[in-house]
Amino acid sequence: MKSTAIKTGMFSFFMVVLFLTSLNASEDKIDKKAEPNISTQTQACLACHKIYTPGIVEDWLSSRHSKTTPAEGIKKPVFQRRVSAAEIPVELSEKIVGCYECHSLNPEKHKDNFTHMGYKINVIASPNDCQTCHPAEVKQYSDSKKAHAIKNIMENPVYHTLVSTITGVKKIDNNRITTDKPSDITLNETCLACHGTKIEVKGMKKVMTAKMGEITVPDLTNWPNQGVGRENPDGSLGSCTACHPRHGFSIEVARKPYTCGQCHLEPDVPAFNVYKESKHGNIYASKYYEWDFNAVPWTIGKDVKAPTCATCHNSLLVSPDGSVLAERTHDFGSRLWVRLFGLVYSHPQPKSGNTSIIKNKDGLPLPVTFTGEPASEYLIDKTEQDRRIASMKRVCGGCHSTDWTNGHFEKLANTIKETNDMTLSATLLLVESWEKGIEDKTNPFDEAIEQLWVKQWLFYSNSIRYASAMTGAPDYQAFKLGWWELTNNLKNMRDMIDLKEKISKKR
Amino acid sequence: MKSTAIKTGMFSFFMVVLFLTSLNASEDKIDKKAEPNISTQTQACLACHKIYTPGIVEDWLSSRHSKTTPAEGIKKPVFQRRVSAAEIPVELSEKIVGCYECHSLNPEKHKDNFTHMGYKINVIASPNDCQTCHPAEVKQYSDSKKAHAIKNIMENPVYHTLVSTITGVKKIDNNRITTDKPSDITLNETCLACHGTKIEVKGMKKVMTAKMGEITVPDLTNWPNQGVGRENPDGSLGSCTACHPRHGFSIEVARKPYTCGQCHLEPDVPAFNVYKESKHGNIYASKYYEWDFNAVPWTIGKDVKAPTCATCHNSLLVSPDGSVLAERTHDFGSRLWVRLFGLVYSHPQPKSGNTSIIKNKDGLPLPVTFTGEPASEYLIDKTEQDRRIASMKRVCGGCHSTDWTNGHFEKLANTIKETNDMTLSATLLLVESWEKGIEDKTNPFDEAIEQLWVKQWLFYSNSIRYASAMTGAPDYQAFKLGWWELTNNLKNMRDMIDLKEKISKKR
Amino acid sequence: MKSTAIKTGMFSFFMVVLFLTSLNASEDKIDKKAEPNISTQTQACLACHKIYTPGIVEDWLSSRHSKTTPAEGIKKPVFQRRVSAAEIPVELSEKIVGCYECHSLNPEKHKDNFTHMGYKINVIASPNDCQTCHPAEVKQYSDSKKAHAIKNIMENPVYHTLVSTITGVKKIDNNRITTDKPSDITLNETCLACHGTKIEVKGMKKVMTAKMGEITVPDLTNWPNQGVGRENPDGSLGSCTACHPRHGFSIEVARKPYTCGQCHLEPDVPAFNVYKESKHGNIYASKYYEWDFNAVPWTIGKDVKAPTCATCHNSLLVSPDGSVLAERTHDFGSRLWVRLFGLVYSHPQPKSGNTSIIKNKDGLPLPVTFTGEPASEYLIDKTEQDRRIASMKRVCGGCHSTDWTNGHFEKLANTIKETNDMTLSATLLLVESWEKGIEDKTNPFDEAIEQLWVKQWLFYSNSIRYASAMTGAPDYQAFKLGWWELTNNLKNMRDMIDLKEKISKKR
Repeated sequence: MKSTAIKTGMFSFFMVVLFLTSLNASEDKIDKKAEPNISTQTQACLACHKIYTPGIVEDWLSSRHSKTTPAEGIKKPVFQRRVSAAEIPVELSEKIVGCYECHSLNPEKHKDNFTHMGYKINVIASPNDCQTCHPAEVKQYSDSKKAHAIKNIMENPVYHTLVSTITGVKKIDNNRITTDKPSDITLNETCLACHGTKIEVKGMKKVMTAKMGEITVPDLTNWPNQGVGRENPDGSLGSCTACHPRHGFSIEVARKPYTCGQCHLEPDVPAFNVYKESKHGNIYASKYYEWDFNAVPWTIGKDVKAPTCATCHNSLLVSPDGSVLAERTHDFGSRLWVRLFGLVYSHPQPKSGNTSIIKNKDGLPLPVTFTGEPASEYLIDKTEQDRRIASMKRVCGGCHSTDWTNGHFEKLANTIKETNDMTLSATLLLVESWEKGIEDKTNPFDEAIEQLWVKQWLFYSNSIRYASAMTGAPDYQAFKLGWWELTNNLKNMRDMIDLKEKISKKR
Repeated sequence: MKSTAIKTGMFSFFMVVLFLTSLNASEDKIDKKAEPNISTQTQACLACHKIYTPGIVEDWLSSRHSKTTPAEGIKKPVFQRRVSAAEIPVELSEKIVGCYECHSLNPEKHKDNFTHMGYKINVIASPNDCQTCHPAEVKQYSDSKKAHAIKNIMENPVYHTLVSTITGVKKIDNNRITTDKPSDITLNETCLACHGTKIEVKGMKKVMTAKMGEITVPDLTNWPNQGVGRENPDGSLGSCTACHPRHGFSIEVARKPYTCGQCHLEPDVPAFNVYKESKHGNIYASKYYEWDFNAVPWTIGKDVKAPTCATCHNSLLVSPDGSVLAERTHDFGSRLWVRLFGLVYSHPQPKSGNTSIIKNKDGLPLPVTFTGEPASEYLIDKTEQDRRIASMKRVCGGCHSTDWTNGHFEKLANTIKETNDMTLSATLLLVESWEKGIEDKTNPFDEAIEQLWVKQWLFYSNSIRYASAMTGAPDYQAFKLGWWELTNNLKNMRDMIDLKEKISKKR
Repeated sequence: MKSTAIKTGMFSFFMVVLFLTSLNASEDKIDKKAEPNISTQTQACLACHKIYTPGIVEDWLSSRHSKTTPAEGIKKPVFQRRVSAAEIPVELSEKIVGCYECHSLNPEKHKDNFTHMGYKINVIASPNDCQTCHPAEVKQYSDSKKAHAIKNIMENPVYHTLVSTITGVKKIDNNRITTDKPSDITLNETCLACHGTKIEVKGMKKVMTAKMGEITVPDLTNWPNQGVGRENPDGSLGSCTACHPRHGFSIEVARKPYTCGQCHLEPDVPAFNVYKESKHGNIYASKYYEWDFNAVPWTIGKDVKAPTCATCHNSLLVSPDGSVLAERTHDFGSRLWVRLFGLVYSHPQPKSGNTSIIKNKDGLPLPVTFTGEPASEYLIDKTEQDRRIASMKRVCGGCHSTDWTNGHFEKLANTIKETNDMTLSATLLLVESWEKGIEDKTNPFDEAIEQLWVKQWLFYSNSIRYASAMTGAPDYQAFKLGWWELTNNLKNMRDMIDLKEKISKKR
């Protein structure tokens, strides 16, 4: 393409001028330490991007990637290693991990690969690229529910119906409410902002930039998006930047609770909200500034004195004496025996990260029937549950006595049972409304009593369980999205059934 | 007044004793550096107030005002200047900016000027006083919606009706609900706490103090208040302390998101809430402690790596190479092309900060008609919108590619359209209820279906837009005050109309 | 018990091996400073617990207890003392405050005392134990509402009915909702998580530990729990760890707002929520990192520039010149004249921390009648109210002028009056529904109109008052749980009464 050629020519000139300027501008950072190990391609990237997108260049300059070569990383003692590869391709090994090192990998797989200023660049660096150095993490992640987060919601007809019912634009047609199919953009901003979108390359397009004039870039669908199950143009699943944002690749950010708090939120899955109200959250908020969120391994009592999300769910955690309390994992469900998030009841964790394969006895793609019977063949068994409970208790045991910890888990088990009971009660009222013809079960999510039923399990039962699991947030459990709401809601369902029944009888 | 004279006499004695004591008490702070430049009047203020209100004296001692003279401030390179005046009155120029320097300005304009311990003091330092050194900021602010925030709500009959409907005390009279006129105090604590009150001087009054006995001070109406549009006793509009609190005059505090978060909050304008759940908010919360919130200019990537409210909306923002990404402004709408806050639909920004002058085609003082047609002559045109979009995109471009940024703005445009559609659907149902005589349109805010309609635009549509604009908070958009609520609410409006209709037909 | 004897034997062997190891492992901390003063018993505790629960050992190592002997603490100047005892038992005086020093006290009172590895240990260290060194704090606390928090809710028939109505599991029996008695566990996770549980010793039980095999420990009821009114196995009331968590015994944590924020939360008592939205909360969040939360006494303007909860409610607060603004108290209501929390109206503070003794004119155990008349003989009188208002104003006076402070308190008084009026209006509607037989007053909390009435006082009126008291959170007062909800709720109560009445008339 002609304009590209011109740009490339312009680039050669630019590069000489700008690179010299830029080296000068922050010579203390790039030159002194990194220069000998920085690839010429990355130097070219930096020369322009220091001017065009300086924020991400500075972010990268603050990262470990800009200061360490894979060869250095791989030599560290095993518990201190952040690089899990047994060996690193020789052409990458001795250079710091710069723009080009990541954005040029596996070009044959990347439909988003394009010629940019004379270089072949992928727009999106994917988990498949990251696994060049971090294969263990990518493998763990690939088996998790997170990696399958798109199909788990969009290829499950029940959940898909819920999504469409909520996010489609409603019009008024002759006094009646009609629902459009949700737009791709609104899906990208709501459910799929967390779950991830499918990024495809529609072709190339011209973009007018503020500083470089017109450039030609791949035309991506559903972009930007950084959902955990994003389907990338190279076919891989996931988005590492969801938790290690942009070009700092920070373990600190991922370990702080705000990262998980972008998606695990009130009202459906208020993990972050109840954490903040818990004793652990209180100690974190009061004392975090004294802790070390960058240490690998992470030493309980020294680096971190009260858990954040990552402490319990995925970090490599050791005692001050060096013994391992928990191995690192990027399958975030792997220490969990029960799935608190009720669909529509809380149930044992699924065996596979791909939950769209589940069928319950009623033939529905749900892990539990409407009356609470689990689809056991798709869920982990008692032995595996016990193994995982024991692994989680080892984390608790870093600070708490066995009896205390046992008492905590007994409370959680009771909470699960009672909130499941409260969900069952709501389901029985819903069924009554269907059987009496008061509401129509075709779509179980679009009428008033149905909406109350959804709140019972999706908001209230779930909220109470998360609060219970985090040993805190009593006001959440009592009033805010808790027992008060569970109780009121049942009464409101009962009243609404009675009212609609009476009105219809009088017709 | 006799007692004042006595006090003044007492003061002379006090001053000698206390001033010596006080200088001694914190000599390290006042003496060493500041003493040569501190006015004798301010020394007198400090001598007493160190004892009577030590907290604000310490606050001031931590401020730049206590350490710098205007003459020093005015000499700085242009991008580092915090003083925008071309020249400073000579009597102020060489003294640090102390109590008396601010609280004695323009006494002829200040109805709140009074004799206090022998000095003529204004109770309230106003924007008109601040502009002695900061005229550019005050001018920008004076043209903004914030400066006109009182009349924008109280002199608009529609909004005023909403205010009165909500905040008036309701009594039960013969089983019916009656609504009193809202009290001035409750207005001051609710709407006008943010919008600002009108401060007038009723006269003088005696106040019994804990340490000084009885003193005589101006008797102010609607005081205390620090709302952004406060009408001051000198006739000026605004309250700088709303964002630069009390006597620290901190740029750091103003740039941190908690300041904006005092007013821009759930459920009507949840900017702060969605920011906290966004990627930007996550990075801020995780890494802010490494950034410099006092630097002028503010360098992206160095001083600040993810935006706070001020980054996008008003700070002077530069690249590490010194090029300007955005000029400083204290007209907080000046980088905005669209007003997300729907009244009752989202619409282009108004031309004037005074929105009480707007009239739409229906003759109502609203920027949009009930069916969504904008009152275009009062709103900025396409050219101005494009200019402002470009200015905002330059800020985004500090870190993001042009294509990414364009994708973000496309998402926002779609969100505005779809949430406007969802508001229109609610409006059509409301109109149906009015036409059928189910509810009465005289006051459009005081009946049950009307209240649901208000929620549709004021809470739910607005919330989704703010979340979309900040490229985050997907759970907010999906469930919490988002699409789930928009959808349920329409169904509830529909059911309520049907129910009330059926009941009334059976009479 | 035989197995205990065996364990004790094992322990002797373990101790020699482990203690030597452990000393080596963190010799820098224990040895250098603390060793000479550390008791042999505590050394034995640490030897094992460094391995079994390292987190709490590290927490203790960071505490003042691990570094100071009571003899040193008692010698400090009076305002700097954290130890209020006039003298300390000689056997404790010269040793740092380690595991054994606290967990072995008053064994004759502790039903939870047991032989653990050869030592007689109490599972729970109680306020009665803490008062060995901190008698003034325990005495103040013992007189407070917090110490009586269990009986204040569970022995008051009205509140107990509310608790049972909310937290009991509901079943559907023949289409009707039935309510079970709440389980002890759910009470422990909801109301009693904050209020406290009654901990009793049922006997001994065997517990299988991960690292030590089976051990025998007391079998405690309702454990774990750290509620403020916890009834301990030694008969004492309270849980110091509720605010000074676990083994850091931190004054910093207790002074930061997150601690109070574990229980004083949205929607019934949103003190923490409104604080965060207030000007004080904004300044705290922006600048806390520069303040000293460990200083005793706490100097306004130097150590702390904007109040946290503890500043106004209980810390020893001084001016930079050393004069006392407020004495330390651990009776958290002692600076309060009014009880904002309406039951069902806001009223003067009760005289006794035990509120279960109150009877109003209607014979109900409530501080106010249903129509708003206070049970004055149980409440503090005007003189005492004025004394407390003056004490709180002295705190405000650390930064604010007398006139400003007076203006603030006038606003609060008006808010209390108007929210009480709005509660009365809801009560009148409730009474109408009872008198018309629409709902049944037997249980005033379990039907739909009753539930709306509860929201009026428990959520909305209370929220507005907390926001007003903290001079902020205007959006809270206006929309979120504020006047908008108060107003809508009355309308909804009115509509529901009318609707139910019409429906029943048509039967």
